[in-house]
Amino acid sequence: MKHYIGIDFGGTFLKGGVVSESGEIVLFKRVKTQAEKGDQAVINNVNALICGLLDEFKGEVLGIGIGIPGLIDSINGVVVTSGNIKWNNVNIVDRLKANYDIPIRISNDANVAALGEAKFGTGKKYSSTVFLTLGTGVGGGIVLNGRLFEGNMSAGSELGHMIIRKGGKPCSCGAKGCYETYASATALIEQTKAEMLKNKESKLWQVGIENIDGKTAFDYEKVDKTAAKVVKQYIENLSVGVINIANIFRPDAVILGGGIAKQGQVLADRVSTELGKYIFAGSKGPKVEVLIASLEEAGVVGAASLVMN
Amino acid sequence: MKHYIGIDFGGTFLKGGVVSESGEIVLFKRVKTQAEKGDQAVINNVNALICGLLDEFKGEVLGIGIGIPGLIDSINGVVVTSGNIKWNNVNIVDRLKANYDIPIRISNDANVAALGEAKFGTGKKYSSTVFLTLGTGVGGGIVLNGRLFEGNMSAGSELGHMIIRKGGKPCSCGAKGCYETYASATALIEQTKAEMLKNKESKLWQVGIENIDGKTAFDYEKVDKTAAKVVKQYIENLSVGVINIANIFRPDAVILGGGIAKQGQVLADRVSTELGKYIFAGSKGPKVEVLIASLEEAGVVGAASLVMN
Repeated sequence: MKHYIGIDFGGTFLKGGVVSESGEIVLFKRVKTQAEKGDQAVINNVNALICGLLDEFKGEVLGIGIGIPGLIDSINGVVVTSGNIKWNNVNIVDRLKANYDIPIRISNDANVAALGEAKFGTGKKYSSTVFLTLGTGVGGGIVLNGRLFEGNMSAGSELGHMIIRKGGKPCSCGAKGCYETYASATALIEQTKAEMLKNKESKLWQVGIENIDGKTAFDYEKVDKTAAKVVKQYIENLSVGVINIANIFRPDAVILGGGIAKQGQVLADRVSTELGKYIFAGSKGPKVEVLIASLEEAGVVGAASLVMN
Repeated sequence: MKHYIGIDFGGTFLKGGVVSESGEIVLFKRVKTQAEKGDQAVINNVNALICGLLDEFKGEVLGIGIGIPGLIDSINGVVVTSGNIKWNNVNIVDRLKANYDIPIRISNDANVAALGEAKFGTGKKYSSTVFLTLGTGVGGGIVLNGRLFEGNMSAGSELGHMIIRKGGKPCSCGAKGCYETYASATALIEQTKAEMLKNKESKLWQVGIENIDGKTAFDYEKVDKTAAKVVKQYIENLSVGVINIANIFRPDAVILGGGIAKQGQVLADRVSTELGKYIFAGSKGPKVEVLIASLEEAGVVGAASLVMN
């Protein structure tokens, strides 16, 4: 049996899995990242995780794929810069490869999740899909004709940094009005709190402003006008990015993942309605589906997909 | 010698050329489009143009490529919809192919120009380039690793319909705040007139409001505050789209074509400065050049490129 190891780098945990050719995780382990101890400590933890996984599948593992947040040069195996783990110019592939006689590849975590969803998740019946993770930021991954598109030195696919409101909210990247300042979970939480402060009668105060998360506005939408307004505006903003992606790539589907996507197909359908109104050439062009990501561990499965053929 | 025919469909003229393998136009002809006489009349004119070109290069022409404005299904050879020539669902390839025993391919005119510039123009030393025509609208063409990327049924690559200002100017496509409502020549003319009306002292009045074109504000920029303001804002808006393209595709270069690009490399350099400030990950990522298109007849050369290998 052919198997592949996939590693998903998080700020707190390194998750790893042995993944079958059909995208099933047959063994799963996780260890602490310990980014605060420096890059060698993290690499030691990666090695320990890989060894634990390899141990039970000796000779059956054909490659190791790793998804890492940040600007990743996948051709050269270098983490150019990663805020989460505070790395700059770490050639992780070089530092791992002496230990293993199988190929090792890395890519950005959102790209990897996009590939996982495209190959084994919601996108598996389509050939071109664009993936958005709606979490702390907005990550993007682009799969065209079954292959990951990353741009030069894998620095493209930064869909969260598409400007959708020129001169709008300042973004951590230095630009203003980036998609992620309106469509991330972080943005939704900010938007919810801002509207609460304008509406002291809102039922959202039952939750307490300190407990607001990316779910709260959706939970109260049907019973509270303030919550309904927040959700309506959020979906409009989210849809603008999806419209842009549809007009630029005309893919088979845009797949929503990350915390906000837990709202499920109801959310995707609302975005789809907006998309139907504004997509270029309307129904004269081919349909672009809006779907919800389906894999429990897209990061692990997607990372393993990096080394499948 | 291998030669290829390229046809560029315009609202007024059909331009055609016999193009060499190295992208040179060795014979050029044009005829009237006569769109007002209906699709068969236009197809007759296309046939007459092709016959005139073939006549002198019998046996040496290996294919016919055609660039057409509008939503073009290049796989099936269908003009899905084209406002300029008022066609809907015309299978032009089917209706031409009985007359010729060489391959015929069609694509959107901006895509074709992008391919021409990528293969034989400014972009020829690069593998991935994105082309923008700044004319009546903003057309886009995407060349990734030497190949045209068009999206499903060639309905992608609509870069002019990327929303850069949610809720902004109404666009003919039905959405609001599309890139072309800020960055086209049409938009620049509107912006120039609007600022003139606010500033009756402006030197732009020497030209007369009825004579304003996409050059006027640039011409008066150094001697008139109103013109300088118009140009500054125009370049900012133009740059937003270029920043988005860079963050999404991280190509080798963004190439500016169309009427406004006649301002030359000075304009490209100003956009490049804006891009340098806001591109994701700044100078840590690979550079994206901003260049001016160089082909006299990118439409004809690009159309011929459609059928080269």
